[in-house]
Amino acid sequence: MIDRQLRTNSETATSAADILERYRAPIERGLRDSLESYIDPVYDMLRYHLGLDEPGSNGGKALRPTLCLLVCEALGVSWEAGLPAAASLELIHNFSLIHDDIQDGDLERRHRPTVWSKWGVPMGINAGDAMFCLATLNLRHLRPAYSDTVVVEVMELLHEATREMIDGQYLDMSFESMLEVPIESYLNMIACKTGALLRASVETGALLAGAGSTVRHRCRRFGEVLGRLFQIRDDMLGVWGTTELTGKAVGADILRKKKSLPIVMALAHAAAPERATLLDIYRQEALSNADVDRVQELFSKIGVQERVQDLANEAHAEASVLVESINFDDRGRSEMLTLVNFLLERDH
Amino acid sequence: MIDRQLRTNSETATSAADILERYRAPIERGLRDSLESYIDPVYDMLRYHLGLDEPGSNGGKALRPTLCLLVCEALGVSWEAGLPAAASLELIHNFSLIHDDIQDGDLERRHRPTVWSKWGVPMGINAGDAMFCLATLNLRHLRPAYSDTVVVEVMELLHEATREMIDGQYLDMSFESMLEVPIESYLNMIACKTGALLRASVETGALLAGAGSTVRHRCRRFGEVLGRLFQIRDDMLGVWGTTELTGKAVGADILRKKKSLPIVMALAHAAAPERATLLDIYRQEALSNADVDRVQELFSKIGVQERVQDLANEAHAEASVLVESINFDDRGRSEMLTLVNFLLERDH
Repeated sequence: MIDRQLRTNSETATSAADILERYRAPIERGLRDSLESYIDPVYDMLRYHLGLDEPGSNGGKALRPTLCLLVCEALGVSWEAGLPAAASLELIHNFSLIHDDIQDGDLERRHRPTVWSKWGVPMGINAGDAMFCLATLNLRHLRPAYSDTVVVEVMELLHEATREMIDGQYLDMSFESMLEVPIESYLNMIACKTGALLRASVETGALLAGAGSTVRHRCRRFGEVLGRLFQIRDDMLGVWGTTELTGKAVGADILRKKKSLPIVMALAHAAAPERATLLDIYRQEALSNADVDRVQELFSKIGVQERVQDLANEAHAEASVLVESINFDDRGRSEMLTLVNFLLERDH
Repeated sequence: MIDRQLRTNSETATSAADILERYRAPIERGLRDSLESYIDPVYDMLRYHLGLDEPGSNGGKALRPTLCLLVCEALGVSWEAGLPAAASLELIHNFSLIHDDIQDGDLERRHRPTVWSKWGVPMGINAGDAMFCLATLNLRHLRPAYSDTVVVEVMELLHEATREMIDGQYLDMSFESMLEVPIESYLNMIACKTGALLRASVETGALLAGAGSTVRHRCRRFGEVLGRLFQIRDDMLGVWGTTELTGKAVGADILRKKKSLPIVMALAHAAAPERATLLDIYRQEALSNADVDRVQELFSKIGVQERVQDLANEAHAEASVLVESINFDDRGRSEMLTLVNFLLERDH
């Protein structure tokens, strides 16, 4: 580990994959540490969900803890003392995934059965609750490197973000029964559901690095914009993504009538006849594959992909300007821009 | 509020109802405060569950926050600065109830539809998550009366207890698929599921009162024993309770084949023929009212009620000795014994 640190400290990673890879092992260690005192079967469910149950199993990109640790380093502080906070961010994200999978009835995540589909809904609820609880408990490991005051501040940042994330989940679920969602409502929903925890990830890094209020404020905003960029790209992949890369069927979000940005944008910009056709299709209880094709055609005609891409580009531009405005060191600034570019272009 | 405080400070309550009533309004205020900045529909679900949505609605006994505040006062410290911690204890208890109701499929709680039966399972999961999140956030209101170090200590106490409670819920659910549960396993389950949060309620009171380690230790044990006493009585009411008082059908826990103490005790002490009959009945997919009657008869024959009562009496005796061993003031000691007696004898 020390060798690796010495090496990576002197090199600027030029791909997002290299940046994510640099922190992968430490984050996995942080997650294992958060669970290590617990041996009950409850924690086996958590290890399974996190992919810690078998070597080489994929626990996801770990974007949130990576951002937190990267911000620490880019502001000139070693990431090691902040690892428990980074692990807590990942635990909170994964608690929400375990419960989301129940709420959405999803059977698979990361190419494996979801917790609830393996152990049942009651145990799935319990596993999510345990994960959330451990996320909070784990913050105690910030001591003694950090003061109790910092621990309380991190606790507040993380839980305020979690509260917003839960609000966002509420809004997202309430959209299911709405035929049409205004763009502003959609953007507010993703700011809560996705933006809040990414904001907390970046801001926690700044807090742990002892940044002043101006930097804290810019980091907050940077995290919010990253959240918007991340979710817009996610929505694009849900409609125009490649099955082999995303693990989802083409047009998956159309088939399940998800009120993601493409349909929101389409209804806001369609001419009257296309709009009427889209609404007729979305009024149906269930959609056929032919419906999905028809919706895709209408999206092309309305120019939905270009409009959604414009919004992603705007977020990308704002994020890039923010990176330049924060006093990251050279390596940090360069790597942050690499990550921002990745979020605009990623295909999975 | 001030008048009330002056009056109650000079009087020793002689019934549990009076003790619970004394703290009812402040605890309700603490709960309202924890929710007051939030206006989204999510929080309407929480206010509904807590009975804060209509005046005079019943939110439950609030035993946990009452114990916390009573211990504060009995150790010579005003309860007011500790109110946020007491409210957090009640929020954690209620988060677990919202999720328990989903896990058990219960349609009613406190004579009203449960959250999930009113808003659906996905929203019910979300409401519980929000309640747990607010319980943690609310601890920040302990400042500035308490230091950040105390806030972190309370956070640890509460979340360590919550973690055990979730373990207990896991054990309780896993008992459903077991035909016979050993008494030791049952006692361990209730120590987690019920004992941990009651322990935290008493210990948090001691912590907030600045008690030393000996008092803290005795308070912990006192809380654990109260948890055992509380749950044994709960199990008795589930089999021998009066419908009008408990709001449950007579023998409700038998009908749903719940592995509560009476059946655990019966199987441990039955002679071979009774034991075989009980196992035959409990092997069935569903029980009839005739089965319930037959089980009740067998319980009588085996002397189950007396044996369960013996265990309750043991816990009551240990709790009473512990009360005498802690340096509570005279009023505190007297009221604590009143509460201990109530937990042994309560009929609802």
